[in-house]
Amino acid sequence: MTHRTLGELAERFELELRGDAAHRIRGLATLAAAGPEDLAFLANPAYIGQLADTRAGAVIVAADQAERCPGNALISRDPYVAWAHIAAHLNPAPAATPGRHPSAVVADSASVDPSASIGAQVSIGEHCRIGPRAIIGPGCVLEDDAEIGADCRLVAQVFIGRECRLDERVLIHPGVVIGADGFGLAFERDHWIKVPQMGRVRIGADCEIGANTTIDRGAIEDTVLEEDVRLDNQVQIAHNVRIGAHTAIAGCTGIAGSTSVGRYCMIAGACGIAGHLQITDKVVITAMSTVLESITEPGQYGSGIPARPQRQWQRVLVRLGQLDGWFRRLRSAEKSIDGQGR
Amino acid sequence: MTHRTLGELAERFELELRGDAAHRIRGLATLAAAGPEDLAFLANPAYIGQLADTRAGAVIVAADQAERCPGNALISRDPYVAWAHIAAHLNPAPAATPGRHPSAVVADSASVDPSASIGAQVSIGEHCRIGPRAIIGPGCVLEDDAEIGADCRLVAQVFIGRECRLDERVLIHPGVVIGADGFGLAFERDHWIKVPQMGRVRIGADCEIGANTTIDRGAIEDTVLEEDVRLDNQVQIAHNVRIGAHTAIAGCTGIAGSTSVGRYCMIAGACGIAGHLQITDKVVITAMSTVLESITEPGQYGSGIPARPQRQWQRVLVRLGQLDGWFRRLRSAEKSIDGQGR
Amino acid sequence: MTHRTLGELAERFELELRGDAAHRIRGLATLAAAGPEDLAFLANPAYIGQLADTRAGAVIVAADQAERCPGNALISRDPYVAWAHIAAHLNPAPAATPGRHPSAVVADSASVDPSASIGAQVSIGEHCRIGPRAIIGPGCVLEDDAEIGADCRLVAQVFIGRECRLDERVLIHPGVVIGADGFGLAFERDHWIKVPQMGRVRIGADCEIGANTTIDRGAIEDTVLEEDVRLDNQVQIAHNVRIGAHTAIAGCTGIAGSTSVGRYCMIAGACGIAGHLQITDKVVITAMSTVLESITEPGQYGSGIPARPQRQWQRVLVRLGQLDGWFRRLRSAEKSIDGQGR
Repeated sequence: MTHRTLGELAERFELELRGDAAHRIRGLATLAAAGPEDLAFLANPAYIGQLADTRAGAVIVAADQAERCPGNALISRDPYVAWAHIAAHLNPAPAATPGRHPSAVVADSASVDPSASIGAQVSIGEHCRIGPRAIIGPGCVLEDDAEIGADCRLVAQVFIGRECRLDERVLIHPGVVIGADGFGLAFERDHWIKVPQMGRVRIGADCEIGANTTIDRGAIEDTVLEEDVRLDNQVQIAHNVRIGAHTAIAGCTGIAGSTSVGRYCMIAGACGIAGHLQITDKVVITAMSTVLESITEPGQYGSGIPARPQRQWQRVLVRLGQLDGWFRRLRSAEKSIDGQGR
Repeated sequence: MTHRTLGELAERFELELRGDAAHRIRGLATLAAAGPEDLAFLANPAYIGQLADTRAGAVIVAADQAERCPGNALISRDPYVAWAHIAAHLNPAPAATPGRHPSAVVADSASVDPSASIGAQVSIGEHCRIGPRAIIGPGCVLEDDAEIGADCRLVAQVFIGRECRLDERVLIHPGVVIGADGFGLAFERDHWIKVPQMGRVRIGADCEIGANTTIDRGAIEDTVLEEDVRLDNQVQIAHNVRIGAHTAIAGCTGIAGSTSVGRYCMIAGACGIAGHLQITDKVVITAMSTVLESITEPGQYGSGIPARPQRQWQRVLVRLGQLDGWFRRLRSAEKSIDGQGR
Repeated sequence: MTHRTLGELAERFELELRGDAAHRIRGLATLAAAGPEDLAFLANPAYIGQLADTRAGAVIVAADQAERCPGNALISRDPYVAWAHIAAHLNPAPAATPGRHPSAVVADSASVDPSASIGAQVSIGEHCRIGPRAIIGPGCVLEDDAEIGADCRLVAQVFIGRECRLDERVLIHPGVVIGADGFGLAFERDHWIKVPQMGRVRIGADCEIGANTTIDRGAIEDTVLEEDVRLDNQVQIAHNVRIGAHTAIAGCTGIAGSTSVGRYCMIAGACGIAGHLQITDKVVITAMSTVLESITEPGQYGSGIPARPQRQWQRVLVRLGQLDGWFRRLRSAEKSIDGQGR
């Protein structure tokens, strides 16, 4: 990382600077660890106690915290967003080195933009199309007719099934499997038979897919992620799911087949969402919840139970099992009172 | 896909045809999307409203729905099963292209049937055996002494550990890890020591294993899937588990060590099943349930809690914590009533 | 496996032998399956019934069980630990075959110890450092500047992100992704922007990481596993998590960002632990629990609910929804009693 002056950063990112415009920034760090050449930020109020003692060369802060900042301050209405922009500017994502590694296996019928980068040990099937500046990292496998948009990056060891399609700037982390068969089975007398999965997966622009996440191809029609969907690691998206634009889903959550999730939803980690549901826009699901019915109103929903000391929890479990009986006893107590009160 | 006439389909799949035997089918589609050359089906009653308006060239339906079908009908006792057969007939799974890709690394001592297909970037260890017409897709790794039965397909990037064995027609999706070490640890004074995992994984005929699923090798004896077991994506099967024939397990479910699951079970998504349990045949576990005890009777079991609006759920959580106290108050109220009633 | 006499085993592992010191052991087996040349062990009291009938050549047992042993006995204070040591001695982990497979792609600037083994289809980036006797199995990808300590083993298809660092003797199973980007997003007006993930992952000596587990790189500082941490399969560790030495985490558990877990903790399978928490040392979390608050006292915690017959469970769910109303009724009953009692 080369250096930038605070003046340059303030101008480029349209931030107000309080302090020394000539001060040089060479690194990025937390409030606690930053030194005089580092930029830090304060977004989460939990860390406000670290502001007074920071040795950071400058801190990105909201206007109402700026006075507490002991050194230079870059003032932003949303310090976290400003941080994201500056950090990306100082640590740009790797650019594609055009060309194919000699160990890559690329079908003759594939169309690879000359500005794209095809890494070591890659396998690209017939009629695939790889767009400008796309990066296909080491060990990736693209089946026939896969289509990768401009400026996509498949970091490494990603699988893209036949005919699946990624729009521009999709970022996919290692171990992701897109377009494996959905879990389609029909039961015939005494055994299962496989139901062919003929749909595709289509992924909109600016999506990011976390490591080891799986997105199955549709049974007949497609599984769809609209633009700017953000999936964390180890998320499971079943066949024919549709996820609306700008929805974010945290790690280990699974969504069963044919469910549709709206736009601007936020689904926390380790949730399970049943199949064939409709979740409307702007729904928030809290951690480790089970969604078994459609949700028609925006808002926050949940069913996660916070852990307690095991002995207390065991008592709760016992009480849960007794609820039915106790309810009957309460009803009978009410009757007695009623009788006695007359 | 080449075309078939409805007469040909009716004859081959032993279905009753109501309509034009010469009508040509070239594609497969949903009721809503089908055009005049497409075949559709109606199995889930939720979609019956789409039947009247379908433009499909023909619809596979049950006899009691056939009259509502506006065009040609293929009548089946189980339309979904008929659909699965016809769709597989019209979209056959890829056949093995015999031979080895030049980039594959195959140990000299491995025995590969000449009709098998070994893809790009594959690595096959010493003494492996690959059966007739098996497909080992790009990026797969087989450790020494692995055995792959006839007509198996490892789609891509699958790992098969040493000595593990697949019977015929096993289909394994990308990212699956079969035969990694089980989680065997012994605690010695102040640190863990590894317990060697010496068993294998054995997988019966006609199993299907979903993307990124993991099946650990046994500690001493083998981990076993009997025939026709169907695992969805991101399922975790620990060491020495045994899963009975024809059991299906949905995504994100985990089964801990040495548990045995019966035949014809159906386990929904995101369940956790503890170790050393016996689950009998024909048990159904509903979504996101925790199984902590053996199950000796067939039937449906569960402990998943449907999400509610977060405020309501918070109140339930508060009440859960108060149950003990309230139960004591109920008991004391009963005593008062009892005293007053005398 | 070559044979050992019981006398040799007793001496090397400092166990008391009751029986024939010249008896030869050629294999390892369970009590039930062992034959006269096999060694077995009894650690779990659940299997004590199998002791009387075992045909094992010898059994590792605790002193108080030795008399029940029908044949030779090796006596240990902790039979499972003794078993682990002997089994590892008789089944040693594979040693590195020094050298690089010709299909491996290794950057010129990488420093690979001559005693290390680089497998088929491996890709190693610029400036990586691979220590003595390390094994990089087939299909692994190491990004630039990754560092692998002495005697590490990456079994196959493992991903190590740029600048990530493994200390000595780390064992990583197939499909593991270490050092993918954390899930860092900032919301700007109407869309997400990515927050660069600039930290690393550092993994201490003697850690073991199960198949398809994911450990994200830190946002600014590092994600850290201290020494002897043991992770099972499909565990998800988010950015900036810190896990203390000797902690073991079972399959399918997820830990959200910036949470710190203490030393000597044991976390069961399928748990979800929220972000920004502090879990102290020696905490046990039971299966399928949700941890939403910091834990400051050692001990056992949980919130998993054991599955019941679905009909019973449905009644519990109905009652849960009614709790609020019933509590109000109980309060009013108490008031009536109070009024009547005056």
